[in-house]
Parts: sequence; C-alpha cells; structure tokens
Amino acid sequence: MSATWGKKLKITVFGESHSEGIGVVIDGVPAGVKLDFDAIKAEMARRAPNGGEFSTPRKEGDEFELLSGVMDGVAEGTPICALIRNTNTKSSDYSQLRDVMRPSHADYGYRIKYAGFNDIRGGGASSGRLTAPIVFAGAIAKQLLSAKGIEVVSHILSVADVEDKRFETEITGEVINSLKGKTLPLIDGGKEENIRRVISAARADGDSVGGRIECAVVGLPAGFGDPMFESMESVLSSLLFSVPAVKAVEFGSGYAMTKARGSEVNDSWQFDKNGDVVTKTNNNGGVLGGISTGMPVVFNVAIKPTASIFKEQDTVNIATGENVKLSLKGRHDPCIVVRALPVIEAVAALAVYQFVGE
Amino acid sequence: MSATWGKKLKITVFGESHSEGIGVVIDGVPAGVKLDFDAIKAEMARRAPNGGEFSTPRKEGDEFELLSGVMDGVAEGTPICALIRNTNTKSSDYSQLRDVMRPSHADYGYRIKYAGFNDIRGGGASSGRLTAPIVFAGAIAKQLLSAKGIEVVSHILSVADVEDKRFETEITGEVINSLKGKTLPLIDGGKEENIRRVISAARADGDSVGGRIECAVVGLPAGFGDPMFESMESVLSSLLFSVPAVKAVEFGSGYAMTKARGSEVNDSWQFDKNGDVVTKTNNNGGVLGGISTGMPVVFNVAIKPTASIFKEQDTVNIATGENVKLSLKGRHDPCIVVRALPVIEAVAALAVYQFVGE
Amino acid sequence: MSATWGKKLKITVFGESHSEGIGVVIDGVPAGVKLDFDAIKAEMARRAPNGGEFSTPRKEGDEFELLSGVMDGVAEGTPICALIRNTNTKSSDYSQLRDVMRPSHADYGYRIKYAGFNDIRGGGASSGRLTAPIVFAGAIAKQLLSAKGIEVVSHILSVADVEDKRFETEITGEVINSLKGKTLPLIDGGKEENIRRVISAARADGDSVGGRIECAVVGLPAGFGDPMFESMESVLSSLLFSVPAVKAVEFGSGYAMTKARGSEVNDSWQFDKNGDVVTKTNNNGGVLGGISTGMPVVFNVAIKPTASIFKEQDTVNIATGENVKLSLKGRHDPCIVVRALPVIEAVAALAVYQFVGE
Amino acid sequence: MSATWGKKLKITVFGESHSEGIGVVIDGVPAGVKLDFDAIKAEMARRAPNGGEFSTPRKEGDEFELLSGVMDGVAEGTPICALIRNTNTKSSDYSQLRDVMRPSHADYGYRIKYAGFNDIRGGGASSGRLTAPIVFAGAIAKQLLSAKGIEVVSHILSVADVEDKRFETEITGEVINSLKGKTLPLIDGGKEENIRRVISAARADGDSVGGRIECAVVGLPAGFGDPMFESMESVLSSLLFSVPAVKAVEFGSGYAMTKARGSEVNDSWQFDKNGDVVTKTNNNGGVLGGISTGMPVVFNVAIKPTASIFKEQDTVNIATGENVKLSLKGRHDPCIVVRALPVIEAVAALAVYQFVGE
Repeated sequence: MSATWGKKLKITVFGESHSEGIGVVIDGVPAGVKLDFDAIKAEMARRAPNGGEFSTPRKEGDEFELLSGVMDGVAEGTPICALIRNTNTKSSDYSQLRDVMRPSHADYGYRIKYAGFNDIRGGGASSGRLTAPIVFAGAIAKQLLSAKGIEVVSHILSVADVEDKRFETEITGEVINSLKGKTLPLIDGGKEENIRRVISAARADGDSVGGRIECAVVGLPAGFGDPMFESMESVLSSLLFSVPAVKAVEFGSGYAMTKARGSEVNDSWQFDKNGDVVTKTNNNGGVLGGISTGMPVVFNVAIKPTASIFKEQDTVNIATGENVKLSLKGRHDPCIVVRALPVIEAVAALAVYQFVGE
Repeated sequence: MSATWGKKLKITVFGESHSEGIGVVIDGVPAGVKLDFDAIKAEMARRAPNGGEFSTPRKEGDEFELLSGVMDGVAEGTPICALIRNTNTKSSDYSQLRDVMRPSHADYGYRIKYAGFNDIRGGGASSGRLTAPIVFAGAIAKQLLSAKGIEVVSHILSVADVEDKRFETEITGEVINSLKGKTLPLIDGGKEENIRRVISAARADGDSVGGRIECAVVGLPAGFGDPMFESMESVLSSLLFSVPAVKAVEFGSGYAMTKARGSEVNDSWQFDKNGDVVTKTNNNGGVLGGISTGMPVVFNVAIKPTASIFKEQDTVNIATGENVKLSLKGRHDPCIVVRALPVIEAVAALAVYQFVGE
Repeated sequence: MSATWGKKLKITVFGESHSEGIGVVIDGVPAGVKLDFDAIKAEMARRAPNGGEFSTPRKEGDEFELLSGVMDGVAEGTPICALIRNTNTKSSDYSQLRDVMRPSHADYGYRIKYAGFNDIRGGGASSGRLTAPIVFAGAIAKQLLSAKGIEVVSHILSVADVEDKRFETEITGEVINSLKGKTLPLIDGGKEENIRRVISAARADGDSVGGRIECAVVGLPAGFGDPMFESMESVLSSLLFSVPAVKAVEFGSGYAMTKARGSEVNDSWQFDKNGDVVTKTNNNGGVLGGISTGMPVVFNVAIKPTASIFKEQDTVNIATGENVKLSLKGRHDPCIVVRALPVIEAVAALAVYQFVGE
Repeated sequence: MSATWGKKLKITVFGESHSEGIGVVIDGVPAGVKLDFDAIKAEMARRAPNGGEFSTPRKEGDEFELLSGVMDGVAEGTPICALIRNTNTKSSDYSQLRDVMRPSHADYGYRIKYAGFNDIRGGGASSGRLTAPIVFAGAIAKQLLSAKGIEVVSHILSVADVEDKRFETEITGEVINSLKGKTLPLIDGGKEENIRRVISAARADGDSVGGRIECAVVGLPAGFGDPMFESMESVLSSLLFSVPAVKAVEFGSGYAMTKARGSEVNDSWQFDKNGDVVTKTNNNGGVLGGISTGMPVVFNVAIKPTASIFKEQDTVNIATGENVKLSLKGRHDPCIVVRALPVIEAVAALAVYQFVGE
C-alpha cells in the first residue's frame, strides 16, 4: 500500500470497502481558510452511488465526520481527518470470491501481494469506494485553487463510441459554468441522449461500457511545474493512474500529434490583445518541458469498461487449481465514467495545488 | 527543478546542455554487483547523436567518467556518480533565443519559472541531452532487473502514419532478441523502409515527425506495485512524462478499451499448460488495481514531432513585446523517436526496479 | 504540521487535545501478522493518565477503535487506522489562554505559525496527548521487532537529582525482564522511594521536575543504519525530538566522551566466547558511522520539567500588549518522565524498524 | 547509503575518500541569487586539513569545480554540482585494514552492511572528508539565510576539560563578529592557550581529545518548525548526527534542565523595550513544541575524541578470526573539534533553511 501522497497538501487514505470506515487525513490546509462544506458534500454526492440510471442501485451517502483540524468551519492548520463510516456492507456475497478471481479486477494481484490476508469483501482496499476520501481532499484542493483564480473542470469526452467535442483552445467562463453541476457534462449537449442510450443498453445486457473524460485546469499561470522528475505531467499522471479503471492519459492532442509534422502541431506563441503571451493552438495541453505555459492544462483519460459484469466469464479458482466459469451477482455500475468525473477533477486539483500551494 | 527521483535506486541528475558537464548520482546499487560497462556504453550509444540518418548531424560521444561508488567494476554500495563532460558546445547560436521563444519548447516556462536566470544555451536544463544520465542509470537498472529474470524491451510502434504491429499477448524470448540491438526495432520488419522514408522526407522539408514507442517489461511476477498512490502505472507514467516530448501514455489496449464493452475486453484468467495463472488477453497491460498480474507490463508512449524545425514559425519576442517570425538554425533531429527508445526503456527499468529491488 | 513519518512503516498522526478524536494511520504492517492487542492496550495504559501518584488526576482510557487494516486480529497489509475519541474535554478553562502565553509551552510559536487559528484547548495539536497514537504505532513496531529477536527496553535514568545506574555494556534478558511491566523501571531499585519523594514534593509545591530516560535496543545485528543522512542516530534522534519535552539526546557515553582521550573511550573489538564480534565497552552506544555495531543501541534523553506548573509566572498578553502574571489551573503531571517511558520506547521501535523492516 | 537530504534545498553527496572525486548536487538554490564563492572557499578552508597545529599534517585544498547550475556566479535555479577531486590519496597504507577493524570507527558496520565491497581506503564513504561537500552546501545555505537576516555562528564550548562560557541569552552582533573568522572561536578568549595545550599534549602522546561545539542561529523569527515529526529540533538533530563523531545534542540548557524544577527553568515571556515578545531566559534554546520562539536557536554537540590514535589498541582480524593488536600509522587529527566547527554550522544552516527557504 502506498496510502500517502503529496507535499503541499499531504493526503493519507485509509479503509477498505467493508471495514469500519474509510477516510483521509489531509495535512497542509493553510490555517484560517474557511472551508465550504456544502461544496464538499456536493462533490461527494457526484461520486456517491445514488441508485440513478448511471449508477449501481446501491446507495451510500458518503457522509463524513470531521475528526480533527477544523474549528467552526475554519481550517486550524493541523491535519484534517474525515471519516466515512461503511454502512452498506452486505458481505454475504463474497465467500465465493475468496478463491475465484474476477477478470480485470485487482483480486489476483492483491492475493499474491498480501498473501491472501487482504479483505476481499467489496474489493477491499481496491474498491472504487476508496475514491470517496480522495474526492473529499480534492474538493478542498479545488477551493484552495479557486481562491487563486484557478478552476478545474471536466466533461465526458466519450462513452463507448459516442463522442463529445474537445475543449476549444480558449476555455471561457461560460463553458466552465455550462459544465458545472451537470450529471452529464458535455460540450455538445446534443450527445446526452446517445450516451444515456448506450449506457442503458449495456446495463440491459448485464454488460458495461467505458469512455473518456477530458479535464482542464483553467487560470494556471505560466511557470509552474518542475523540470525533470516532477513535471506537471508527471505529477498529474501519477495521480490519475491511481484512480481505478484509468488506463491511458493524453495531454493536449496527445496521440494525434504523433501523426502530424512539427510544423502542423507546434503551438505558436503570440501576444494576445491584452498583451499576454498565449499560444494560438494548445496541442501541448498547456505544458511544455514539464512547466505550465499559461494556457489551460488540458488532458484526457481513458476509463475502461467496469470490470464487474453479469455475463458469464472464464476464470480460475486458485484454491482448486481449476479453470472455472464466473457469473457475478450484486450491484454494479454499467459505466463508471459518470461517477469518475469528480474523482478526475479531485486528483487534478490535488496535483496542481502541489505546485501552486503555500 | 526536481532532480532527484526514486527509493530503491535514488537518482539525482544535474547539468545543462552547455554547462561544464552533466551527470547522475545513483544511490542504492547493491554492494557487490558486477556492472557491465560495455552494456552501459552500448545503451548510451543508442541515445547519443551519431550524425546518422535519424539523428542530428551533431556528434557527442557521451563518454562518462566514474567519480565514485565503483571499484574494479564492482558496485561498492555507495553512491555512483557518473560525469559526462559537455564538449560540443558551440554557443554562438543562442543569443537570438534569449528573448525569442521557440514554439513548443520549454523556453517560455523556464523563463518565467527561473526569472530569466536559466542557461538557455542548447535548451539548458530542458535539453534532451539530460536524458543521457538517465540512460546511464537505466542501463544499470536493466542489469539489476535482468539478474532477476526481468527484461525491458521496446519497439517503434509508429512514425507519423507508418504503423508497426503491437506486441502479442505472449512476448517470447525470440521476439525480445529480435528487437535488441536494432537501430529500428520493429515487430513487422517490413515497415523499416517506410519509416526511413517518412523521416527523410521530414528532414528534407526542414520539418519533423513524431511517433509512438511500445515497451514491455517481461518476466515481472504478479504482486508488484502498490495500490493507490504508487500503482505500477503511476510510477511508470510519472517517469515516462519526465522524458521530453512524451505527451501520452497508454497501458495495454488503453484508449481502445473505451470503445468496447466489458465482456469484450475483460482479461479472462486461466491456468496455462504449466499450471501458471495467466490471462488469455492482456488488454490491461499486465497491471490491475496498480499491481502486476504476472503478464508482461505493456505500455506505449506518444512522442511528439521534434519541436525544433527549420521552417519559419510565428512567435514572440518577450523583450520587445512584439510578435515575430523565427527560423531556427543549427542541428536538429528530424524524428526523436529512434533515439528515445533507450530512454523509454531506461525509465521503465528504473520504475520497475522501484518495486522489485532490494 | 508534519504529521507523516517513515518508510517501512509510514505513520500519520491526526487530532488535537479537544477535537472529536485523535488517531494514527499506519501503513506498512506486513499482511498476515497477528497483532497482540492486549500488548498494545498495555502500552497505551502505561502512557495514559490514570490519576495515580505520577500522573495528572485526569483519567483518559485512550481506548481505540480500529477503523481499517485489521481483520480477525490479523493485519491485512493495508493501512491500519486507529481512532481514539476525546472524551474528557472540559474546555471551559481555556478562554484565558487565548492571549496569555504559557511559559515554556508551544503556545506562542503555534499562535504565530497558525495565525491564531489553531485550537488552543488543552494545548491543541501540541498536547502531550498526541503521543497516544504514537504509542499505538510503536507498540506494533515493538511486536514486529520482537519477532526478529529485537527488544526495546527503557528505565528512568534520573528524576531531578536522583540518579539510577546506567545500563551495563551487556544487557541481559534478566535485566530486560526486570524492567518490563514496572511503573518505575529502575536498574537500581533502591532509588524508587527517592524518586517517589522528589515527585511528591514537586507536586505539593505546585511545581514540577524533569529527568532522564535511558533506552536500549537489544538484539539488533550489526550493519543496520545508513551512512550520512539516515544514520541510525539521525533517525532515532529525529523521532526522539518529536516527543514533547525532550531537550537532549546522548548516544552511549555521549558528553562524557568529550572529557576523555581516545585511548580511554575507544571501544575495542574482540571475539567473545561464542566467536561473535563484540566491543569490550560500549561508549559509542552501539552505533559507529551511523551503522549498528551489533552491541545494544543505547541512548538517553533529557525530559524537561513539565512546563505546566501552578506557581505564578511572568508572561505576556498578546492581545493587550501587556506583561502579566499567570497562575495555571487544572490538572497537570508533576513529572512527565514516568508516562514518557512508553513514548520513548515507541519512537525507538519505529526508528529501528525503519532499518530492519520488510 | 542515504546520500540525499532535504526539501527546500535538496542535497546529494557522493564520493569516497580515495575515489576519483567527492562532491555534492544542490537542488533548490533560487534562480538569480549571486553566490559569494570567496565566502564558500573560506568555509571550505576552515574545514580542510591544513597541516596546522589542530590538524592532521595532510594538506588537501578541497578545491571545487562547478559542473552545473551557476552562470557568471549567479544561480540558474537548476541543480548546482560541485566536484572536489581527490588528489592526496596515498593508498598503500590500507592493505592492513581490510580485515583488521579500527576501534570506534565505522569499519565493521560498513563491512557487514556492504558485504566487504566498500572501499576502505581512507575510510571510504565514512571518511570525515565527506563533510567537505556538506560545508560547500552549507556555505550556500548560510548566504541564503544571511539575506534573510539570519546568522549561524558557533564556538568551541570545551575541549577535554577546558570549558568556554556558554552563549548569553541575548547574542549580540558584537559577539557574532568576535567569533567569525577565528580558528579557535571562544567566548572566553582566555581559554585559548589552555585549549592549544590540551590538544598538543594529546598529539604528543599519539592520542586524541574530544570536545563540544555550541552553535546559535540568530535572527530566526518565531513560528518556524513543524510540530510533530519535523520539529526544528528533529531536523537539526537529524543532520547533526549525520556528522561523524557527533554523539550527543543538547538544545538550550538540555540536561541541566532535568536537575531543576519547572519554576526554575521555565522561560518567562515578556515584551522587551521594543515591544517584541522575548523570553527572559532561553533554557529551551529558542524552540518550544518544535517551533522557533524568536529567541536564538541554541544547541551544542558532543564530538568524541578522534577515533584514530597511534597508541596500540585491541581489536579483531575478521579474516583470521583472531584478537589482535593494532597500531595505526599515517596522518590523523589529534582533535577534530576545530575542523568540525564549519561542518556544524553548515548543517545548522541547511536545517534552518529547510523551514525558512523559498
């Protein structure tokens, strides 16, 4: 386990899906910052399973208790610990899964790494539920960034083969506002119905679909990020790949640049009408040589289809040494992309705050 | 700057393109390990500009001096410092570039971050030349891995629109050997001529092309990688994005998985003929939940076209506040993909050794 | 705040004296280790205020709830979070102390550092109460060490001017056992009555006394500790100085060596009757060049008199800008040395496990 | 080995006594800082063996070459690497010492830790010579601190039984200046002759003496230092115990406080004539609860007698398994205290800059 991350904000996550609780210790929130707990709860609600059409039928409020570090809603400067009790822990389902490995899940690696002593109920420490404390921490990071004029915003770039548009080079406040608070944030709102349909179809088939999330950090000045081992992209990608189901990360135009010539994709500099230095295009996604350029930091991630599906699959029983068939039961998300949006924003905020924080 | 990376092997890189020298301190090589310096030199030579058809006409031997940590070719257990003198440092070319920002280069971010005090000659600390010490360190990591039966191998997956095949699910020793020692390692050798042609064409036009490198870590047992913040993918991606020009990273099938349903891309487990637990496919690239599965760890990176091109470009002069035209001179690689191969392997080896090392 | 420490075991402490709770997240306990929670409770009880003659009249059970990482008493390999609720939090006493700085307490530094937003009730995060989670973590470290044949043991070396004997060069199992489980562990048991008397006298006067604790790590083989920045002494001292009231640390004969000549205090090597390499004396306290010698690692710490005394003291009122008199009320320990014993052992165990742990 | 230390300034030390060179990489010197290399050389000269009366007859200039990070005497913001060639490396003396362990030296621990592969010539990586790069780094830290009005100053507190006075509670600029530039900085200059005599006598006898160094950090404002694991004392002591021969560290009155009552040694607060908050005494050495109080940070260290003496000593021959006699030859310091002064100041400066640096 590597439960601790960060420098300016140091966060430590604990818990398993079915332990007494899960939570996070956040060290480094500056003393005196008034925290907006309604905003934190709203972020938590975006991630929590709500029984809605894009979610597992399971409902978990993800209500948190503040154990330390906050007095009268104001950060004291000392570590903030938030505890989320695990309440919805029907564990009768899991006996079968002690020895039968779920395909595309972490089960086998965990079993080897932890010699079989890990708690497998609900996926244990590999459960997507562990992203709840990260969203809590990220919601604080977002507030700290917002106070510096930096906004983190994301939209669904695709679900299965339904594609949204990409961010434009300039990301206006209007675009940011149009995405905030939406369950299905899309630049091209016309795709909403298609996305609902493709997810519903997967659910109906006991199957799942994946997709992409594009995220932008807007308002970050030039000059942040460390060359070499802590490039802006290094720190962002490191956290993004901590999110379950993320299998790829592109900055800016990413793979598309590999098909083009330098003269086609180099981002030309220019003074804009305010005299600010900007680039005409943003193929590099706002980062050059690991350092922010002043343009929006733009990246997207690939979210694989939810590994848990109801269709019968081939797998192994470690105890018996046999190849077996597995049909998962229980409650699963047909598409994790929707609930992953606040998680991606959370880790983006944490990563960027690492560079701009006090 | 964040010049130090790692835990089991801790490496610290120093130098600028035109400083007295560049180098690396490597802390953590186990005492008593006999190092194969010919192998290290061979790796260095793969990266060094050699004036050949895929390289800048500039030649730099990248000869290193061992300052510490090695006696009679054997590691002492104390930090190994390797120094590479900068010899080919014609610096007359750079006066123009003090205030005129090269498009898609790190110039502007560096200028802001370092308040203009950074050495701009040859790109200073943002120079691709700084990958030489990383290749040195990576060559040692490769030897340490090889002693554990783990091989790191890569091939060109594409240059511009010329595509090689991907690795098969099983990566045999035969495939590994067929790629080693090649200037243009390709699974589909028939693409070699096309790749030469597309690079030559870009060079002839004073332009550049990008491409992709696919890399595999073969022989890594299941159970390595830390859940959450130091997932195998997190540590790999973090180092990969430290390499100049890398703009995207995919593990396994990456983005392709987002178009598919779970039932199509989940990697089924099975016992193979030796009784080992394997997956039938490897869409997850050998990592699940951040932990190795025992299958090859497979990923690919997008390398953008070399930013330095001879064609005239639009940019800004920071000192005069004017939009200007810039035509770069000097010696530049038309395609950095070929020389990037040993760098990608080096950081992959360093990342994996972080998990399996003593 | 720097709430996280360590590598093999990474511990993160949270909480303030009067927050909802305090606790610790311990990352790195190997999967499959059966933890002895009775032993942990016994260590906690040594530290907890019990209303006895060496303690404040306040009683706090320091009962902990395990939130994660343990199933059926066995470590899962994932982070263990232990939560201790703050129950005995009479906070009416503290309004006076918002602006009036207690002499020799952390109040003023905290006020400046946290701009007055820190929780001052009970000393907030600077409270000695925060050593309870450290004792919890240390009790686990002790069990992990014990399984490797390494014991951590301590005794009172002095209280005020009453002095115990120092450890002999050889520390036998008999000596170790004679000290374990004692409220007042002393090598020279004849000093027990004197110590009770000097503490009682201080209490009767509304005053306090300090003292020294000598601690030994027995059974640690030679070769542990890192030269240079993570010497055995560096890591031990770093943690020891995290314990409130510790003002000095000596290894082996420490200051006494500065009065002697090399020929008098150099520790000669010899083969003992078992053919083991030992030293005839242990003036260097089992560490040379930062590395363990195989002899017991012996050190002692100075614990200053409890800063909280009932006698009237001079101080300042920051709000009014006036020099004022202060008479503390409430419940305070006349001598913190006794309750500090398990804390010193805890941090010693954590420090040593850093080197010998998996 | 743990060759890297720090956060604001991250320093990495490499080299052995008789390797090609020793040196340091310093990452984090802010871009644009004009470095005073004469001052750095002066610090290096204080530490270097000069053949004088307090030193080994060996002379080493400790001349350094700047490999990176500095242009025209100004820091670029990128890592500064300084290389010191080892020139005076008569290695014929060392064959005897391969198997015969020098008492009170690191030989045995190194041999076990590095399985005999470490370079033993001149003590290898455990040589006091490795403090030269630390002095280089510390000299830079001192300049960075000085620009913030913070001065680091030290004096000899004792040699053998000759004692200097301690710093007064207030440390004036006059006192600081009176100590700077002195070979034997003493508050009570009348002790100089006695110190010369006690060192000469030890040298004449082929023996050695130890002593104490008291150091003060003057001008550090209140509020620096992190509670808990990175207390000011933790970070200082951690670095101090990295210095060979340091066996004890006291802050303020240290051990003397353990003999006193709280009412006698608590440091009362008061507003001074300028309206600043100060303490009447400084028994706590300028640190409370791990945080600076605004008073001088004062500590002293015990330096043991030089382990290398010419008198015959008992020891072991590991290869033959026999107890043997050893008479060291070569060139050794009779008292390392004098040359240790700049080293103690260097690590103090590095530690304090960790808290106040950019």
